[in-house]
Amino acid sequence: MPENNLLERALLRQPIDRTPVWMMRQAGRYLPEYRKVREQAGDFLSLCMNPELACEVTMQPLRRYRFDAAILFSDILTIPDAMGLGLHFVEGEGPKFHSPIRHSRDIDNLPIPDPEQELRYVCDAVRLIKRALDNQLPLIGFSGSPWTLACYMVEGGSSRDFRKVKSLMYEQPDLMHQLLEKLTVAITAYLNAQLAAGVNVVMVFDTWGGALSAQDYQQFSLDYCARIAKGLDVQVPSILFTKGGGQWLENMADAGFNALGLDWTTSIAEARQRVGNKVALQGNMDPMLLYANPDVIRQRVQSVLQEFGNGSGHVFNLGHGILPDINPAHVEAMVNAVHDFSPELHHS
Amino acid sequence: MPENNLLERALLRQPIDRTPVWMMRQAGRYLPEYRKVREQAGDFLSLCMNPELACEVTMQPLRRYRFDAAILFSDILTIPDAMGLGLHFVEGEGPKFHSPIRHSRDIDNLPIPDPEQELRYVCDAVRLIKRALDNQLPLIGFSGSPWTLACYMVEGGSSRDFRKVKSLMYEQPDLMHQLLEKLTVAITAYLNAQLAAGVNVVMVFDTWGGALSAQDYQQFSLDYCARIAKGLDVQVPSILFTKGGGQWLENMADAGFNALGLDWTTSIAEARQRVGNKVALQGNMDPMLLYANPDVIRQRVQSVLQEFGNGSGHVFNLGHGILPDINPAHVEAMVNAVHDFSPELHHS
Repeated sequence: MPENNLLERALLRQPIDRTPVWMMRQAGRYLPEYRKVREQAGDFLSLCMNPELACEVTMQPLRRYRFDAAILFSDILTIPDAMGLGLHFVEGEGPKFHSPIRHSRDIDNLPIPDPEQELRYVCDAVRLIKRALDNQLPLIGFSGSPWTLACYMVEGGSSRDFRKVKSLMYEQPDLMHQLLEKLTVAITAYLNAQLAAGVNVVMVFDTWGGALSAQDYQQFSLDYCARIAKGLDVQVPSILFTKGGGQWLENMADAGFNALGLDWTTSIAEARQRVGNKVALQGNMDPMLLYANPDVIRQRVQSVLQEFGNGSGHVFNLGHGILPDINPAHVEAMVNAVHDFSPELHHS
Repeated sequence: MPENNLLERALLRQPIDRTPVWMMRQAGRYLPEYRKVREQAGDFLSLCMNPELACEVTMQPLRRYRFDAAILFSDILTIPDAMGLGLHFVEGEGPKFHSPIRHSRDIDNLPIPDPEQELRYVCDAVRLIKRALDNQLPLIGFSGSPWTLACYMVEGGSSRDFRKVKSLMYEQPDLMHQLLEKLTVAITAYLNAQLAAGVNVVMVFDTWGGALSAQDYQQFSLDYCARIAKGLDVQVPSILFTKGGGQWLENMADAGFNALGLDWTTSIAEARQRVGNKVALQGNMDPMLLYANPDVIRQRVQSVLQEFGNGSGHVFNLGHGILPDINPAHVEAMVNAVHDFSPELHHS
C-alpha cells in the first residue's frame, strides 16, 4: 500500500483518522496548468494518448491540493476507439465515433483489443504515474461500464434520449446482450492490464445506467458490471458509480464492488442505512456547489460529512465531475474543509 | 363525476374494473392533425393562447384512442409569462424568457397574476374543453411546480446544469425562498381558477425537482408543492409528478396529493410497497418503448401492469411525455394493451 492509504482503508471500511478526498475529473480544464498542457498536446484525445502528458496532468492537482488519490487521466471511450470505431471530439458536442454500431455484423466484427497492444498508451501512462507518485498516494484506474460504452457506440456520440441504443435493447435484446458480452470481456481485460501496470483501486463509471428502467438496469447494466468485478485478477478495492442509480443501491451493493459512488440526489445518510455494512460510499456534493462562495462550500462539506456520520466507509467526492469553469480556490476550500471537519468523525 | 370516472376512482384507490390510461403530452406533435392546427395557429404559444384551438388539440387524441382522460393543452410557463417575463420559443432550443430573473429587485417586482385576467385564455380553454367533453371524460388541469418555474425564470430558459438557479439557491437561500413563495401563491390561485372553470383533477409537474439533492428537494421543492395541495379550494384528486424523484417517494406521499407520477426508472412494484396505502401511482413506461414494434409495446404494457399488481390505485401512463416522432399506431397498441390486459387485475 502507498504511504497515504486512507482511500484504500476507507473503501474497505477499516479504521482511519480522517475521511479521504479526491474529485472526479480532478485533472481537468478548471486548472490553468491543465489547459496549458492540453494546448501543447493539440487536442483532448492526443493528450490521453500521450503517456508523458497524461502523467503530467494526472499529477497537477496533487501539487495544488491535499487529495488522497490520483486518478489516471484518460477517457472512458478508449476501448471503443481501440475496437476501431474512430473516436474523435467535436468542440462543444462531446465525443463522436466515425463508425458507430449500425448492424448486427458490426457487433459480430468487433475485435477484443489487447490492452498491452492497442491500449498500450494507457498502460504506459499508468506505469509513468506510478513512478511519479513514488508510493506516496494510491492511483485509481477506471473504465466505463459495458452499458455506458454501448450507449456511445450505438448512438455514435452523446445522446439526450438514447433512442438508438434503447431501440436495439427493446427490439433485439439478444443482439444487445451480444454487444454487452463483448464489452464485458474487453473491459475486464483492460482493467486487469491497468492492475498489472500498478493501479491500486479500480472504478467503473456507469454514466448512463440511470437512463434505464429498474428491470433493464439490472439486466443490461448491473449484471455485466458484476461480472467485471468478479473477473479482476488482483484483489484491490473497487468502486461502482452509476449516475442516477440511487434507487438501486441495494442491488448495486450485491454486485461485488467494495464501494458505491453516489450522485448528489441521494441522501448519503439513507444510503448508508440501506447498504448497511456491505459497501463503502463515495460522494456526493453537488458539483454546482463549487460555484458558491467558500463559506457556503465549507458548510456543505461539513453537512455531507455529518450526513454520512461517524466511522470509516466514506470517501468524500463530488456527485459528478467538476465543471470546467470552477475557480480553483473553491476546490481548495472544499479539500480544506474535509481535512478540517472529518477527523472528529473518526474518534474511536 | 364524468361518465367515465376510472381516472378519478383510480386516483382515490376506489374499486374499478380496468386500469385507466392517458399519456403525458397526448395532445402533441406526434399527431398529424395536431401539426395542422399548430401550423394554422402560427406557433406553439399562439396555439396555447387561443382557447378554441387549444380545445381542439385537447380533443384530438380522444377521437383516436380510448384514453380515460383529457388534459388541458397548455404550457407550464404560462405563469411566468403572465408575470411579465416574456415567454417565447426558439425552434430547437425550447422556451426562453426576454426578461429572466437577474436581481433581487426582479423578484420584489414580480406581480401575482390574476388568473381570470392575465391567464383568462387558459380558463376559457378549460370552459370550452369541458363543454366539448360533454361530461364523458374527466379533464386534468395542471401547473409547473414552484421550483420548476423558478428554474426556467432564473436560467432564462432550459438548462443542463441549473447553474444560475442553483447558485441563487446556494448563495442566497432567502431570496430563493422569496421567489418560491410568490410562485406558490400564483400557482395556487391558477389551479383554483382552473378548478372553478371545471377541471376534475389537478397535476403538478415538478420537471426539475430531480436535479436537487435530497435535502434541497424537500426544502426548495416539495414543501412548496405541499402548500399548493393544501391551498386547493375544491377537493379533487391530485397528482404530483417529480421527474427523477423516485428516491423520495415516502416524503412525496406525505405532501397531500392523492397520487404520485413515476418516471420509468422507478420500479412501480417497489414504489407501491414503499408508499403503501397513502397514494395512488401513475406511470411509468419508458417513452422510448413507443419506438419499438407493437408486439414489444404490448409485452411491456403487460409487464408494467403486472408489476403494479392487483387492485385499484394505478393510472397507466408513460414515465415522461411522448416524443414528437412516434408512430401514432404505436400509441394505439399501448392503449389497446391496457384495455386488454388490465381487467384481470381488477377482479374482486
